[in-house]
Amino acid sequence: MKIKIRNAVKEDMKQVHNLIVELAIFEKETDEVEIDEKDLQKMGFEYENPLFHCFVAEVDNKIVGGAIIYNRFSTWKGKTLHLEDLVVTKKMRGQGIGSKLLDKVILHGKESGAKRISWNVIDWNINAIEFYKNRGAEIVEGWSIIHLSGKNLENYV
Amino acid sequence: MKIKIRNAVKEDMKQVHNLIVELAIFEKETDEVEIDEKDLQKMGFEYENPLFHCFVAEVDNKIVGGAIIYNRFSTWKGKTLHLEDLVVTKKMRGQGIGSKLLDKVILHGKESGAKRISWNVIDWNINAIEFYKNRGAEIVEGWSIIHLSGKNLENYV
Repeated sequence: MKIKIRNAVKEDMKQVHNLIVELAIFEKETDEVEIDEKDLQKMGFEYENPLFHCFVAEVDNKIVGGAIIYNRFSTWKGKTLHLEDLVVTKKMRGQGIGSKLLDKVILHGKESGAKRISWNVIDWNINAIEFYKNRGAEIVEGWSIIHLSGKNLENYV
Repeated sequence: MKIKIRNAVKEDMKQVHNLIVELAIFEKETDEVEIDEKDLQKMGFEYENPLFHCFVAEVDNKIVGGAIIYNRFSTWKGKTLHLEDLVVTKKMRGQGIGSKLLDKVILHGKESGAKRISWNVIDWNINAIEFYKNRGAEIVEGWSIIHLSGKNLENYV
């Protein structure tokens, strides 16, 4: 099986959106996806400063996985890279596609001078955590993520 | 006491760097600060796409606090804003300066169309957590932060 990793183009966003929804369903957060294919096209390809970069994995010219990344900044380290989503469609898992996508993301981070690659994991997804730990990634203990969103953001004076 | 919140300029970065170091000491992570004043000037003001935006708080024309922010992207929500650091120098705490800085950050996020403001907290800083919760922010339960950095990043194939 030949796996091809390439930069996504605007026309891929329908399939990438399908992958995002598939991941949200897997994470039991189906209703959380509020953006659509058009938003992805706009935010990733039409903005003067696109909000993300996307890699896709192809097998037989069909998109079977994707990774969405963007730059961040650390007041300790400087430029860093964040991996927002890494998805492989269910029936294609376990064949090294996720691994190839992650390799590409990390290589891209190194080449662009990122001092750190960060991402988030859902605690019950022990397979994913194991997969990441095997590659040298570490869970940051003692820190929590905070969100201000929805009504609390809208109504904040 | 009159507190003035304004956009930082390049020349403020020395004082902002002092605040970053002060926060790292408070967080017991002193050795983690690897960037200097010049890096801040470069990354925030000289890059074609600056890596961060900074607000400072002034009292009597002296910088006593700062907030460092940048855009992020959520595959669920779209554009979001991240608050990387919020610092008030020790002897000026408890006078509403942090509150004014946070208000400015959140207003900026709302005006720029961010669907969410995110940040991280250190778990033992219960005063900070209380401060944020009082303003409608919520700790995201069940998710962890992962980092790949240092030697593990360098040696990743």
